[in-house]
Amino acid sequence: MTEAVASNQAGLKAEISDFKRRRIREEACHLFYKHGYESTTLDAIAAALNVTKPFIYGYYKNKSELLMDICSTGISLSLAALDEPELDKRPHSDKLRRVVERITKLILRYQEYIVVYVREEKNLEADQARFIRKQRNAFDHKLADILLKGQKTGEFSVDDPLMTANTIGGMLTWVSLWFVPGGNWSETEISAHLMRMVSAITTHHSMEHAYAP
Amino acid sequence: MTEAVASNQAGLKAEISDFKRRRIREEACHLFYKHGYESTTLDAIAAALNVTKPFIYGYYKNKSELLMDICSTGISLSLAALDEPELDKRPHSDKLRRVVERITKLILRYQEYIVVYVREEKNLEADQARFIRKQRNAFDHKLADILLKGQKTGEFSVDDPLMTANTIGGMLTWVSLWFVPGGNWSETEISAHLMRMVSAITTHHSMEHAYAP
Repeated sequence: MTEAVASNQAGLKAEISDFKRRRIREEACHLFYKHGYESTTLDAIAAALNVTKPFIYGYYKNKSELLMDICSTGISLSLAALDEPELDKRPHSDKLRRVVERITKLILRYQEYIVVYVREEKNLEADQARFIRKQRNAFDHKLADILLKGQKTGEFSVDDPLMTANTIGGMLTWVSLWFVPGGNWSETEISAHLMRMVSAITTHHSMEHAYAP
Repeated sequence: MTEAVASNQAGLKAEISDFKRRRIREEACHLFYKHGYESTTLDAIAAALNVTKPFIYGYYKNKSELLMDICSTGISLSLAALDEPELDKRPHSDKLRRVVERITKLILRYQEYIVVYVREEKNLEADQARFIRKQRNAFDHKLADILLKGQKTGEFSVDDPLMTANTIGGMLTWVSLWFVPGGNWSETEISAHLMRMVSAITTHHSMEHAYAP
């Protein structure tokens, strides 16, 4: 998201400004993750970066704007991952695998952002929370659209594309809540596992068991 | 969990004591859900129940004990759902379906408890957090054990039972984070969907796509 903004602006000055904004956001996210949003002051964020509070005000008008930027990171990047034009040339099943792979990578890279979003969504202002919910909704619909199109070509077999898209989003998001870097499972293992899971729930043809009494 | 305790104790007095404890926990959970753990005082919980703070101290020694009781509710009940002896007589695939059905029901019934756990886990004391993590671990292993046993009988086909169990747990928990009572999807629709999803990821036989370059 921020990277895209930077490349649309001109020159090194914009890049540096963007870099500073990103570092503030990163540090704020880390402190929100460790101590909670409510217990973290702008003073603490400034201290962690060894800058003054007015420096932060040059980039964020208040703590709430910071929280919004952090909370919208995961969903904005995930939406962008769905929209990459190069994926449109591929078969739907390929596209879905690439999307799952990319979003898993994003979730592992931005793990603390996702966790802060899940925990602190309640502290967003009403219009901010609504905006993010709309983006999540758009994500589910775009993903459901891939499932529907792949259903038409016979690549997928899905009962309820929208609910399945929601479940896929949940399976991916879930990783942020338990993944431990350097723990039992590597990023590649997790990514491969999730690609298998998504493949299974989108191509399964014998579901009669699920309805048996 | 609490229901079981009550039935092990003697008579109406124990039942009433248990009822009071449950009501305190319920109200605390609702306030933690609405306002966050840190912003909720024992005074606010007492006021919501129209009782005194000493009344609460008769059941919970502090706010932290309340949070622990709330956070462990979902996992304790889910573990109990895995252990119901009557399920042991059934084929593993039946057992898995029943377990998914029961846990989905629990998650919808105790939705606010699960959400408070996900959000406020960071506020648990270290030994409390460790205890719950051990229970979650035990849950994943017991569920993986069902998958392994069903694999041996040819009912299931699973690559990594433990990671798959974790993913199933995540798919079910996810519901608590988005379900809106009276919203687009009914409890039955969600339950049927999750049973299909779990059936798909445990019986899928053609996964070669997931590995394609």
